[in-house]
Amino acid sequence: MTNDSLYAVMMAGGVGSRFWPESRRSNPKQLLTLFSSKQLITETADRLKELIPYSRQLVVTNKDQQAGILKAVPGIPAKNVIIEPVGRNTAPCIGLAAIEIDRINPDATMIVLPADHIIKNDNRFRKLLEVAVQYARKTESLVTLGIKPHYPETGYGYIQSGDLIETIDDVDIFNVKTFAEKPNIETAQRFLKSGEFNWNSGMFIWKVSTILQEIEEYMPELFDGLMKIKKAFGKNNEQATIERVYKSLKRRSIDYGIMEHSKKVATLSGDFEWNDVGSWDVIYDLNKNKDAEDNAVINAAESLLINSSGNLVSTKNKKLVAMINVDNLIVIDTGDALMICPRDKSQDVKRFVEELEKKRWDEYL
Amino acid sequence: MTNDSLYAVMMAGGVGSRFWPESRRSNPKQLLTLFSSKQLITETADRLKELIPYSRQLVVTNKDQQAGILKAVPGIPAKNVIIEPVGRNTAPCIGLAAIEIDRINPDATMIVLPADHIIKNDNRFRKLLEVAVQYARKTESLVTLGIKPHYPETGYGYIQSGDLIETIDDVDIFNVKTFAEKPNIETAQRFLKSGEFNWNSGMFIWKVSTILQEIEEYMPELFDGLMKIKKAFGKNNEQATIERVYKSLKRRSIDYGIMEHSKKVATLSGDFEWNDVGSWDVIYDLNKNKDAEDNAVINAAESLLINSSGNLVSTKNKKLVAMINVDNLIVIDTGDALMICPRDKSQDVKRFVEELEKKRWDEYL
Repeated sequence: MTNDSLYAVMMAGGVGSRFWPESRRSNPKQLLTLFSSKQLITETADRLKELIPYSRQLVVTNKDQQAGILKAVPGIPAKNVIIEPVGRNTAPCIGLAAIEIDRINPDATMIVLPADHIIKNDNRFRKLLEVAVQYARKTESLVTLGIKPHYPETGYGYIQSGDLIETIDDVDIFNVKTFAEKPNIETAQRFLKSGEFNWNSGMFIWKVSTILQEIEEYMPELFDGLMKIKKAFGKNNEQATIERVYKSLKRRSIDYGIMEHSKKVATLSGDFEWNDVGSWDVIYDLNKNKDAEDNAVINAAESLLINSSGNLVSTKNKKLVAMINVDNLIVIDTGDALMICPRDKSQDVKRFVEELEKKRWDEYL
Repeated sequence: MTNDSLYAVMMAGGVGSRFWPESRRSNPKQLLTLFSSKQLITETADRLKELIPYSRQLVVTNKDQQAGILKAVPGIPAKNVIIEPVGRNTAPCIGLAAIEIDRINPDATMIVLPADHIIKNDNRFRKLLEVAVQYARKTESLVTLGIKPHYPETGYGYIQSGDLIETIDDVDIFNVKTFAEKPNIETAQRFLKSGEFNWNSGMFIWKVSTILQEIEEYMPELFDGLMKIKKAFGKNNEQATIERVYKSLKRRSIDYGIMEHSKKVATLSGDFEWNDVGSWDVIYDLNKNKDAEDNAVINAAESLLINSSGNLVSTKNKKLVAMINVDNLIVIDTGDALMICPRDKSQDVKRFVEELEKKRWDEYL
């Protein structure tokens, strides 16, 4: 398989407000090391490297994160880090990356993926990408990578597979019947039981020409904007055009804007370990260094936990963590902020960010 | 009333381990400012000043606390700060203070009181002391100052009054029927209902000669040790003698060693506001700056408490405190330690100190 025309696009514009106070505008989730010794974006780039060299890896991000990202993935050329003037969800982000790649190679294929997910079993992951690329090229499809669920998660969207279209090597490729929003628990259980539903990982594989055609078809306003940007490429007004166009764009996800409408969608069922690491509770689950009472203590000098279980505590400045008669809390001390919430309510952490934005307490954002 | 022979002895040897991690060996409870803008020992000294000038106020403490105490009560002459080589509970502490005062004035009267309690209505407090001093001098009694209880506290010992002996001005003086240990809640309720029981505040008023006689009678070993120290006063071996004697002494409280046996005991019923500030929960109760959800936040830069109530949070370094869906916790962040416990279990905080001592983690003690 010739890979010279294969590009990766890592979407890295989010802050990950569920990881506040660790995640900040300039130190977002993809740059944190709470998950392993490496930053998430570094892991993502390294995982792709065998398939796609750094020179064909692109990152779409924003001004606040640019410096941190360049530091986290020094192998990726600075010109490959695309800056969005404002966030407008995934459709504009992907469109902008597509025209950037089209500029280099109109026959290119692109893999779009979030920079802040955890994947284990890298070989299998890359194998599925290779099959997806082969299929996308051959059939000019929009391939979406589903993940075989192993429990009824309510925090993910789902993709319902339709008929089997083709099998390449040992990988089955299906039509897509529906895209489903995050279900309630009963629905998630039904999804799991049916065997037809995969988690929507937000990973896509397609030819640049295919996605641009579909954007023209289903999101003409976005296409129009992208063409304006394309015309300005290499000219003095390039940056100003991007800013002007972006400000006029609606926030739209690629799922809502394209995938749910396009007739060219196909899906694979990823049988590797994947996690979008959506909350502190997931960090707790992933932690391998829990004590006998299932407490996970990160970065403390010492801990003294008496009659306490199921807590996740992260501190800065190497302090002693002491808890007594306290269960299932998340406690995050970043030095400038101390956050406490129950583990089973860790989705609510994003509310702090909403409140801080309302109050304009920018120093904590 | 001539007060030239009246002395105060503030007992300030304890650490206040229920206030860990704020209280440390060199920064004990009596030196904290969590309770008001002044340190507790400063408040105690200032409260006595109208009755007894600093020059006749003594403090009994230990080497670790000496510097902090001299700084907290600069008006008290350094020679008035008596250093115990080791803590041996209140009986040796009071005995040592008694012979130090006896050395200056054998006819002196002494008021003994803890340095780390809160008292409101200072005028009434001083009025009761004056009556107690008058009565103690006239009758050579051991007067103990009880506090009229207004709720069935289980954390204090109680004094049961017997017959009314005398009334001086508007203050009644009673015989003591019994000293009762910390009761359970049912017993405490019965005590309250009876009207006969007062809280045991650990404040005593007596002539130096009376307490020394009673020590000779009921604690002959302690008396013997005190006489050895007295003989060494002003000699080269004074300090060595104190050390040697103290190491041989048993830990004994003045209540257990003298008050429960002496025939000379009398009591007053203090009708002023008094609190021994025995736990973080009391600090929470005393805090006057609670928010609408009854959270007390101390020393934070800002706080963002969502759906959280009844918490006490104290931080250093002016950080943002953020809590969501968390109730009735005590959270103390001292910079080198972060302590969390439920408010209704704040008595257990002393267990951290026990554990730290076992582990010999002296840096946190």
